[in-house]
Amino acid sequence: MKEIKESFKNISKLYNNGKPHSLACKELVINALTKLKKTSTYEYYGDFNGKPNIRYYAYISGGEVSRPIRDEIYYLEPSTFEKEYDDLIASFNIPPSHWGSVEKERANNVVYTGVMAIACCYDIWQRGSRKTPGTFFEIFMAGILKEYLADYYFSKHISLTELAPISDLNDSISSEIKTEVHLLDDDDDEEEEEESASSVSTDLVITNVKTGLGLVIPLKITTRERIVQPFAHQRILDSAFGIGKFTSFLACISETQLDKKKNKVNQICVPGTVKLFQKYLAPMAGMYYCDIPQRYNAKDMQSIIPVKTLGDLFVDSYYFFKN
Amino acid sequence: MKEIKESFKNISKLYNNGKPHSLACKELVINALTKLKKTSTYEYYGDFNGKPNIRYYAYISGGEVSRPIRDEIYYLEPSTFEKEYDDLIASFNIPPSHWGSVEKERANNVVYTGVMAIACCYDIWQRGSRKTPGTFFEIFMAGILKEYLADYYFSKHISLTELAPISDLNDSISSEIKTEVHLLDDDDDEEEEEESASSVSTDLVITNVKTGLGLVIPLKITTRERIVQPFAHQRILDSAFGIGKFTSFLACISETQLDKKKNKVNQICVPGTVKLFQKYLAPMAGMYYCDIPQRYNAKDMQSIIPVKTLGDLFVDSYYFFKN
Repeated sequence: MKEIKESFKNISKLYNNGKPHSLACKELVINALTKLKKTSTYEYYGDFNGKPNIRYYAYISGGEVSRPIRDEIYYLEPSTFEKEYDDLIASFNIPPSHWGSVEKERANNVVYTGVMAIACCYDIWQRGSRKTPGTFFEIFMAGILKEYLADYYFSKHISLTELAPISDLNDSISSEIKTEVHLLDDDDDEEEEEESASSVSTDLVITNVKTGLGLVIPLKITTRERIVQPFAHQRILDSAFGIGKFTSFLACISETQLDKKKNKVNQICVPGTVKLFQKYLAPMAGMYYCDIPQRYNAKDMQSIIPVKTLGDLFVDSYYFFKN
Repeated sequence: MKEIKESFKNISKLYNNGKPHSLACKELVINALTKLKKTSTYEYYGDFNGKPNIRYYAYISGGEVSRPIRDEIYYLEPSTFEKEYDDLIASFNIPPSHWGSVEKERANNVVYTGVMAIACCYDIWQRGSRKTPGTFFEIFMAGILKEYLADYYFSKHISLTELAPISDLNDSISSEIKTEVHLLDDDDDEEEEEESASSVSTDLVITNVKTGLGLVIPLKITTRERIVQPFAHQRILDSAFGIGKFTSFLACISETQLDKKKNKVNQICVPGTVKLFQKYLAPMAGMYYCDIPQRYNAKDMQSIIPVKTLGDLFVDSYYFFKN
């Protein structure tokens, strides 16, 4: 685990310094998958009781059980992940607007595998570092998006110069706002950290400097009660900059949760709340999941907010900037 | 602790069935204070390093340390609490608009003592039940507010009939919305509950049925990253019902947090975020604290949102309905 932790630290440094980090991410995931393969068992854990039922697997080692994994979208073999990752990068030779279902599924599954492999290692061997999987999700996604959106400006938060319209907030507190919004998202509060690995959230912001239009991608492994955050942030952006300047694509892994008592898996969904927020707080342009929760895939939801795979996010991000 | 847990259960039942529960609350707090006095030590814990420094105390028993207590607003002696509680109830013989500083301070300290005594018992002897102190805060406050606002309609959430303007949500999901908004607040998810005792939130809604105007009182022992919720809820209410129909008074105990490594106490404040939400999400009419965080008491905050004691909440609620 020490090696994985150190690799992750190095990748974070590369990322924070704006240096290429994609290859390092690939290597890290391969190491994680290899470690999991060697030192834990991967087995059927339980069903999500839906229509139809969905089988979930988990890694088990030394009495610890990882979060549930949807087997059919997960590349268990390190060599398979490596090949699919390379194919994904190669697939950016054609614009994502020309992608077919194979390319979209691959993009979806590569992200799912990468984030889940890291998260499961931390679930089993490093329970304390609950923020790491969410941070890796951000870094990994940024690396892949830069493969075809490198011409645009990547940042973590809406910058303060853009927030200048807050005219009656005096300048001395401006720097604080940034820290705090960041704090709200990342829950920097190590001592009493209450968020689990599955709930850490971070944002990517990609801006077209010529048009000034920006794409906000809140990244959340699962949303839970934090679902209010991306809607509230969109509302603030709409109020501060006018509607249309920023668009939000919410990117998630899943909404699954282990039920250890009953040996089954739940998908924690709040469709009515999402509808309420979409209508009365601020609309997001889409919710993207690697493992789409069944309830969010239903017609009544889709009519109010597009719910798609994370593979579609790459295509839709392309259209957002290139159209 | 068994006795305290059972009393709390009974009080919850009384409350949920709309029966008088104030006296039972008073008895429960007296029992909690007595148990703490007998079976734990109450001692100076550490300072909040502010201007000026503030001394905080804590209960310690069997290696467990309770949350920090601001001694000068806490009635340590069960008999003192009993007397002050009775005096508070008697003080409603005059309308709160005629209250002086003595009455407001007493109201503030009675609520602080009641909630903290219960919370500290759970901190020390029942760490698992993290929602209970927040629920007690709600029940205790409702009981006191009913002393002088009994003519108005008390509920926990905005009722669904009032949410009827959500015309394009089909009826079948309406009941779900209520459950879910409730779930968002209360984090019903026992299995993987991530909220700590200090963070559970619930709402009181008091409506003047004649005018249709409502007062929303989100109750949070501390706010932390959940500070977004009451602002987002106010925004939804403004969007759904029009501005002015619902007014929010946020009621909190404190923003304190133990720093066990350094043996000191922090006040976790996010003034820039509060200003941002107040301006761009939706304005609340006030933030009320038993133990007002120093940072929120500063001029720059007060010019954007009134920050007052919880004693003032009783006075302001009176004015809200009677004027």
